[in-house]
Amino acid sequence: MKRLLDPDSLRALARGCAVLGAGGGGDPYLGLLQALQAAEDFGPAVLVDLDELPGDSLIMPCGGIGAPTVSVEKIENGDEGARLREHLEFLTGRRVAALMAAEIGGSNGLLPITWAARMGLPVADADGMGRAFPEVPQVTMHLAGISPSPAVMTDERGNLVIFQTISGQWMERLERAAAVEFGGAASSTEFTLTAAQARGATVRGSVSLAIRIGEAVTGAEGSPVDALVAAVGGFRLITGKILDVERRTTSGFARGSVIVEGLGPDAGRLIRLELQNENLVALERGRVLASVPDLISVLDSETADAIVTERIAYGQRVTVIAFACDPVWRTEKGIMIAGPRAFGYDFDYLPVEELAGASA
Amino acid sequence: MKRLLDPDSLRALARGCAVLGAGGGGDPYLGLLQALQAAEDFGPAVLVDLDELPGDSLIMPCGGIGAPTVSVEKIENGDEGARLREHLEFLTGRRVAALMAAEIGGSNGLLPITWAARMGLPVADADGMGRAFPEVPQVTMHLAGISPSPAVMTDERGNLVIFQTISGQWMERLERAAAVEFGGAASSTEFTLTAAQARGATVRGSVSLAIRIGEAVTGAEGSPVDALVAAVGGFRLITGKILDVERRTTSGFARGSVIVEGLGPDAGRLIRLELQNENLVALERGRVLASVPDLISVLDSETADAIVTERIAYGQRVTVIAFACDPVWRTEKGIMIAGPRAFGYDFDYLPVEELAGASA
Repeated sequence: MKRLLDPDSLRALARGCAVLGAGGGGDPYLGLLQALQAAEDFGPAVLVDLDELPGDSLIMPCGGIGAPTVSVEKIENGDEGARLREHLEFLTGRRVAALMAAEIGGSNGLLPITWAARMGLPVADADGMGRAFPEVPQVTMHLAGISPSPAVMTDERGNLVIFQTISGQWMERLERAAAVEFGGAASSTEFTLTAAQARGATVRGSVSLAIRIGEAVTGAEGSPVDALVAAVGGFRLITGKILDVERRTTSGFARGSVIVEGLGPDAGRLIRLELQNENLVALERGRVLASVPDLISVLDSETADAIVTERIAYGQRVTVIAFACDPVWRTEKGIMIAGPRAFGYDFDYLPVEELAGASA
Repeated sequence: MKRLLDPDSLRALARGCAVLGAGGGGDPYLGLLQALQAAEDFGPAVLVDLDELPGDSLIMPCGGIGAPTVSVEKIENGDEGARLREHLEFLTGRRVAALMAAEIGGSNGLLPITWAARMGLPVADADGMGRAFPEVPQVTMHLAGISPSPAVMTDERGNLVIFQTISGQWMERLERAAAVEFGGAASSTEFTLTAAQARGATVRGSVSLAIRIGEAVTGAEGSPVDALVAAVGGFRLITGKILDVERRTTSGFARGSVIVEGLGPDAGRLIRLELQNENLVALERGRVLASVPDLISVLDSETADAIVTERIAYGQRVTVIAFACDPVWRTEKGIMIAGPRAFGYDFDYLPVEELAGASA
């Protein structure tokens, strides 16, 4: 099925990307404005299933890299995607057939659509995470053994850097350092692959999923939060208000923590979220309620709009939910790369269903 | 004239490169060991004048980048030059005809010779500074309007980064950040140019000059320091001993200062050298005795061996000399890019001949 990513789809997509971002991936409001403008100026981009593309088609996974706190005020100029594509085609000697979001979460779920509309290229209905993660090798392509090289990075000024590294960790180090020099955020592509490879190395259908999540909220007859929890199969961790935010932009990431104080039925409870671009863990009196790679999202209690970590502020009335990641992240390798220990936590991963079941 | 860079030439060259390094460019002892080994394993490299190369021949300026304090213990593995060449040829679609030292100073005057011997390529009798400077755009090619892009950087592990920037300053920022990630030092090529361009955009004959300087010291019948001062047309600033060294490796540079206490006829005098990889300024009671872009070198008072900034140590008996830079650095643009104000000093450049004349 081909689908035109028209303004209504884009609005629903932005809502869904915010939820799937688990707080990260960049502010989808900015991503939406860019995508709407590109659709108006160049016509809407076409969403294609990976099965519709010839197996040897070249897919360019792409998006923004850096600290989302920076990217809300340091905006792309629009031609980054074309520059990434031009250099990737030079390096590979092949034409790019479709773009794909490296991560569906946040504005990074929308940015490839903006670029695709501008270039007249389709967008694959898939991504490399099914959510957002902070680091370059935290993608399903890495789990599948696809090389991150050659990677291409560019900024809004027109600088360009190409990376050919001996490992995913070196790619992360070098790209992060360049993103920091660029002011804390940049645009990039890594893990170039064919459509045939992508069929087994990505989270498939994630663009459609994000749109469905957005539509579920928009079309909700009762509580938008209830509709959203049902749409993602989520668990409520707490309903309350933001009591404290500690956030700093350092080494190319937004890091910090958020305290949510329970209200109503949750009065007396305090939940702490720890974040590195994304919400990594939710803790209550030292007990883990949910952790990476499962998703933790902070929703506006009225509208169910997910609030990205860089927009969290004192006094916001929120509902924190958690829900299951794509199964690929629950494999041994997935947990090794994106589980709690990968972020420096000294506890083992437990699925949110078990943790939420224990607390119910 | 073609000249084989045999072991005797290399030993003389290493002495000369140390003097022309003005304290920087990396320890020439390490560079010499590598060059001798390469000459033994692969045969000596050939030194060619730029006039001997067809005008459209591609010249690859190259060397090490980073903090010399790091490069004394983080050694190249030898194949960096071949990797730089391979990628530069891919990027330009042309064959590299000859290597050239980006800077003749320190081990960077020898490293391209090691690589050239390994690859069977000639080395051009020229460089981009006539000395050593700490930053990427501080080369004569930049003064002549040659683009630093595409630049290629690699490390001893096999990582590789290509830079295409909008300015020399962006090249410096991005390359420095990558060099820091690599551990503080890496290998790179920038400012690729043709032989025809190089004839008007480099310091010509600097390899031969460095060899002549080395030979003048080796063949000295009287004081090696006297012979060296005569060979470079230098001025003695002080003879004494190292009283204090303050040195730190930060942001990809070795920075700090050195105090030299006069002995003998200079008893009672104190001179302070300030350094960023290279010796930048020599001060006595706040008065400037010499400054960039002119060269300040610290010599062993017995042997006239120039001591690189990372090897300066308490108690060494030294003679500090200063001598004139290549005239290209005394132009308005040269002083803007490599004069005292380019390094943050609040005084105007005066040629060492005037300063030394005033103090005589």
